Amino acid sequence: VRRKSYADMSCSVARALDVVGDPWTLLVVRDAFFGFRRFEDFQRRLGVPRNTLTERLNRLTEAGVFEKVPYQEKPVRHEYRLTAKGRALRPVIITLLQWGDEWSDIGPPPVVFRDDTTGEVVEPLLVDRRTGVPLDEMRFRAVPNRDAASSVAPETA
Amino acid sequence: VRRKSYADMSCSVARALDVVGDPWTLLVVRDAFFGFRRFEDFQRRLGVPRNTLTERLNRLTEAGVFEKVPYQEKPVRHEYRLTAKGRALRPVIITLLQWGDEWSDIGPPPVVFRDDTTGEVVEPLLVDRRTGVPLDEMRFRAVPNRDAASSVAPETA
Repeated sequence: VRRKSYADMSCSVARALDVVGDPWTLLVVRDAFFGFRRFEDFQRRLGVPRNTLTERLNRLTEAGVFEKVPYQEKPVRHEYRLTAKGRALRPVIITLLQWGDEWSDIGPPPVVFRDDTTGEVVEPLLVDRRTGVPLDEMRFRAVPNRDAASSVAPETA
Repeated sequence: VRRKSYADMSCSVARALDVVGDPWTLLVVRDAFFGFRRFEDFQRRLGVPRNTLTERLNRLTEAGVFEKVPYQEKPVRHEYRLTAKGRALRPVIITLLQWGDEWSDIGPPPVVFRDDTTGEVVEPLLVDRRTGVPLDEMRFRAVPNRDAASSVAPETA
């Protein structure tokens, strides 16, 4: 069953979900951040049906999240490397991970981020780049961008 | 078709996706952040089939993302309010939005975050809470947590 496309919505969340709005897809990207690149590794780790995995990897390659690179000649074998667009998904994976850590009954977080320089475990926090103020404060509001043609955000939000 | 459950994976990303790893689900949550609370509003804005929306709202209510609250008596009508667990999805929505802004061909971002205090448009950035250092630097690595029973992260990541 082919998913409906959300790409026609005037919303960047919808556009993003059109590419990565599927659990297998984000789990493949998660494993790519762990350093895995090969079909067999993704397949073994996720237990995903081979045809599903093939479809997801092809879609992510078409979307420019992965680059398909040969790593062996006879026979030709490819691996999937995150592109700049793929690596830019890191904050999405980190915020999902943080939410799962906090709100599922998983116990101690299975994965932590460690700062190589200090050895300390890191606590991710979303801030405003300019002021450093955390975005969980009430003073920040999502509003329609005056420079955009249309927007799903209501004027009153 | 009922999705496979990822909840048995020892990974918080998988646990998170078990709840929100479906595009409609995150679009409903997005609209809840915009202030919408009623079935008819979600339905009209998303164009999602009514039975799909009913199923997603029920699932999100069971998962504790929404609280179902009556807003009218005869006949009884309910609205869906984000709980603390639901509001904690804000960074996930913001990072997805930011990725869609940057990497889809959507043009000027349809939605921006504005700082009510300064009037400035905000640029979200994920940092380490303690040091303020952006997490896109190479010095941060995902590693298995020694305090957890098991982890999907490889020792070598």
